[in-house]
Amino acid sequence: MPLKWSAPQKEFILSEVTSQIAHYVVRTSLEQIPHDVRKEARRALINFIGCTLGGADHEAMEIVLAALGPVSGNGAALALGRIEPINPLLAALLNGVSSHVHDYDDTTPNNYIHATSPVASALFSYSSVNNVTGAEFELAFILGFEVMSRVGSAMYPSHYDAGWHSTGTMGTIGAAVGIGKLLKLSPLQMTRAIGLAATQSAGLREMFGSMAKSFHPGRSAQSGYIAALLSKEGFTTGMQGLEGARGLMAVQSVKADFSTITDALGDEFALRGNTYKPFPCGLVIHPIIDACIQLRERYLINPVNIGAVRLMVAPLVRDLCDKRNITTGLEGKFSAYHAAAIGLSCGKAGLNEFTDAIVNDTQISSLRKRVEAIADNSIPESCVKVEVDMIDGQRYFMALDHAIGDLTRPLSDAQLEAKFREQAGSLSVKQVDELIKSCWEIEHEYNMGRLVRLTIPQT
Amino acid sequence: MPLKWSAPQKEFILSEVTSQIAHYVVRTSLEQIPHDVRKEARRALINFIGCTLGGADHEAMEIVLAALGPVSGNGAALALGRIEPINPLLAALLNGVSSHVHDYDDTTPNNYIHATSPVASALFSYSSVNNVTGAEFELAFILGFEVMSRVGSAMYPSHYDAGWHSTGTMGTIGAAVGIGKLLKLSPLQMTRAIGLAATQSAGLREMFGSMAKSFHPGRSAQSGYIAALLSKEGFTTGMQGLEGARGLMAVQSVKADFSTITDALGDEFALRGNTYKPFPCGLVIHPIIDACIQLRERYLINPVNIGAVRLMVAPLVRDLCDKRNITTGLEGKFSAYHAAAIGLSCGKAGLNEFTDAIVNDTQISSLRKRVEAIADNSIPESCVKVEVDMIDGQRYFMALDHAIGDLTRPLSDAQLEAKFREQAGSLSVKQVDELIKSCWEIEHEYNMGRLVRLTIPQT
Repeated sequence: MPLKWSAPQKEFILSEVTSQIAHYVVRTSLEQIPHDVRKEARRALINFIGCTLGGADHEAMEIVLAALGPVSGNGAALALGRIEPINPLLAALLNGVSSHVHDYDDTTPNNYIHATSPVASALFSYSSVNNVTGAEFELAFILGFEVMSRVGSAMYPSHYDAGWHSTGTMGTIGAAVGIGKLLKLSPLQMTRAIGLAATQSAGLREMFGSMAKSFHPGRSAQSGYIAALLSKEGFTTGMQGLEGARGLMAVQSVKADFSTITDALGDEFALRGNTYKPFPCGLVIHPIIDACIQLRERYLINPVNIGAVRLMVAPLVRDLCDKRNITTGLEGKFSAYHAAAIGLSCGKAGLNEFTDAIVNDTQISSLRKRVEAIADNSIPESCVKVEVDMIDGQRYFMALDHAIGDLTRPLSDAQLEAKFREQAGSLSVKQVDELIKSCWEIEHEYNMGRLVRLTIPQT
Repeated sequence: MPLKWSAPQKEFILSEVTSQIAHYVVRTSLEQIPHDVRKEARRALINFIGCTLGGADHEAMEIVLAALGPVSGNGAALALGRIEPINPLLAALLNGVSSHVHDYDDTTPNNYIHATSPVASALFSYSSVNNVTGAEFELAFILGFEVMSRVGSAMYPSHYDAGWHSTGTMGTIGAAVGIGKLLKLSPLQMTRAIGLAATQSAGLREMFGSMAKSFHPGRSAQSGYIAALLSKEGFTTGMQGLEGARGLMAVQSVKADFSTITDALGDEFALRGNTYKPFPCGLVIHPIIDACIQLRERYLINPVNIGAVRLMVAPLVRDLCDKRNITTGLEGKFSAYHAAAIGLSCGKAGLNEFTDAIVNDTQISSLRKRVEAIADNSIPESCVKVEVDMIDGQRYFMALDHAIGDLTRPLSDAQLEAKFREQAGSLSVKQVDELIKSCWEIEHEYNMGRLVRLTIPQT
C-alpha cells in the first residue's frame, strides 16, 4: 500500500530513520490527517487543558515559579491557568508540570506514554506569544504526538523496562516535532531538531511518586522547543540522532524496531490508541480501583469490617505501583494498596482521594495494611482479580477485564467534558464553555493565544 | 582509614549512595581540601576561562544567542567573553558551548570526562549575578568536579561504551553539586538536587563532530543549575537518584560500582587525574598528532612526497575518531586521518588547523586520503605507532608512548598560561594578566563576578 504522503522512493534509505520521519513531518498537511484522528486530537486537547487547570495551583507549580522565575528573565508568555507573564521556556515547563502532576493526563496503553503533555505544553507556550491558528496547532500536535509515540513504541518495552520514563525521554522528540512544524523547518532542519531532541532525552522512573515525575514532560517540552529553535537558526547535529550507532535507540534500549517508526506513516495514527484517565493515578492500578468501587457498591461493603484484601495483578503493577508505606498523595498515585483502600472505602477516586490528608487518614491507612498484591503472569495489565475477606467470614470476589477509560470502555465526549469541568473550578462557567467549544471547533480558531488567555482565572 | 570528614557511621547505609555523597558535599569545607588539589583546580579554571574566550565568538554561540535570546527574557548575567546581559540559565548554556566547542578543554583520561566545562559554566553564570567569593567558588568547583567524576568513573567504561557522552550525562550532577554548595543546600536538599540532576542526565555520542557536542555541557550546566534551585525551594524527587533500581546508574549503565562513588572520599580527588589539551580535538588522537609533528621535524618530511601513512592505534581511536570524508572543522576534531595530515603537513595543531578552510584544503584533504588507521588491541589508548612511506621508497617510523598533555607529560603552568593567551586575543594584555593572576590567587578574590566582567572585550 503506497504511503499517503508519496515521498520519492530514493529518500527511503532504511538506515536513515531520522531523515525519513523528518521528511514526513515537513510534508504532511492537515488535509492528509483522517477525520477520526483529528477528532481524537480534540479530545486529547480538552483532556489536557482540563488537567493543566487541575494542576495549575499545585505546590509543585509554586515551587517552580519561585525557584526559576528569578533566573528566567521576563516574557509575555503565559502558562495555562496562570496569570504571571513569563518567558516561553518557563511557560512550557510549567504546562508540563501542571498537566502531569496529578497523573490525570492521557496515556497510550500500548507503550505507557503520556504523549499529549510534553507536546501540547510546548505548543501552548509557543502559541501564547506567536500567532498560531487552530488548524496549524492541530496539525503540529498530531504530528508531534505521532512521532513521539512511534519512537517510543519502537523501543517498547525494553526502554521502559530499563527504567526510563518514556513520557520524559520521548517528550523531547514530540515537542521538537510540534514546534518544528510551527516553525516550518526544512527537512534538514527537522532532522537536526529531532537529533537535538534525542540528545536531550532524559527522565528516570526512580522519580515516580514525587514532583520530579511531572517535571519530566515539562523539561521535555522545553528541550524540544529549544531543539527546534536552535535548528531553525542553523545549529548542527549528528544526522542519525535516532538510528545511529550512538544514537538514541541504540543507547537507550536493548531492542529497537526501526520499522515501527516508519511503517504505515500516514495510515496508522497513535492517537487512535489514546486513552483518558477517569482516576488521577498510575494507569495500571485503574482496574483495581474500578473493581473495588464495583465490589463496594454491589455488596454494600463497610470498610471497617474488611479483614483482608487480595489483589491478583499483572507483574507490571507491582513493578510500578508497589508503594506501601506512603505519606503523600503523590506516592498514593503509585500504590496498588492505596488504590484498593480508596475504592473500597470511598467508592470513588478523584483528586480528593489522592491528597496527603487522605493518604494519612487512619481508616485508609489501616485498610491499606490489610491489602496484599500478588503478581500473576497470567493476568494481563488491563485486568485484575480482587478477593475481599470480611471479618464475619464472608468472601467477595470480582474479576475485571477492562477498567473504565480503557480503549474498550473509553470516556465519552460528555465524560471528558465533565472531567474538564471538575478541574476548572477556578474559571467562570462562561470561560469553561468557551474553552470546550473552542477545542471542538479548533480548525476555526484564528489565534490559539486566545485559548491560552481563556484559561486565566478572572480575579 | 577514617574518612577525613568524619560523618556519623549511622548515615553510611551502603545502599544510599546519593544521600552519602550529598552529606559529604554539604559538610566539606575548603580547609579539608589538600593543597595540591586546590592548585589543580586553579589550573583547571585558567584552562577553562581560556577555552571560553577561544570559543566565545564561535558560530555556535551566535546561533544559540539568536535562537534562544528571544525566549529567554532579560537578565543581568553574563557569559564569559560576551557582552550581552542575559538570564543566568542562558549564560550557563553559553559558557558550556564556548568552553567545549573547540574540544580544547580538560579531560580526566581515566573516564574521558571533561568535567570542568559543565561545573564551571554553571558556577561562573551564577557568580555573574550573585556575590560569590573566590574561596566559595573554588570549593564548589572542586566538589562538583569530584562528584561528577566519581559517578562517571563508577559507570566507566560501560556507560561511555554504550554511546553516552559522559560530559553531558554527568555534567548535570556536577553542576547541581556546585550550585547546590553555593546555595548552602541541606543534605536532604542536596540529595534531591542530585536526583533532579540525574533525571535530566542526557547526551549522545552520535552528536560528536557537530555543534551539538558542545551543547551537552551547556545544557548540563543549565540542568544542574535548575536542579539545585528547585531543590532549594522544596521540589521533591526520588531519594535514590543514583543507586535506585530505576536510578541513573541502573538505567544508564550495564555495570556500575557504587563503591567508586564513596570510597576514600576526602582522600582521593579526581582533579589529580585531570589533563589539559595541547591540541583542540578529541583526546585519543593527540598521540597521532604529537608523533606526526615529531616525525615531520626529525626527518624534514615534505608532505607532498608522502605515499602512504599507517597509524596503528587503540581500538577506541577508530571507535571515536574514524571520520574520513569530512568537510567541517568540527568533524576534523574527530578524524584520526585529519590528525595525521595536519601533524605531517603543518607541524602544529592549534585552532587554525581545525577550521573548515583547512579541512577543505586540497593538500590536507589529499593527504588524509593516504592515511590508514589500523585498530590494534595491543596498543594502549595513550600510544600510537606511525609509519610513513615516502614516494621515493624511504620509510619513517615512530612509536609514541605518551602524547604531550598526558598525565606523564602535563602542560606546565607556563604552557597553560600561553594556551590562555593564545585564545584571549580579543582582550587587552592587562585584562589577560589580571585574569590569570586572579585565578592563581582565587582564595583572595572577594567577588567572582569581577572575573566574569574581566573577560568582556573592551570595545
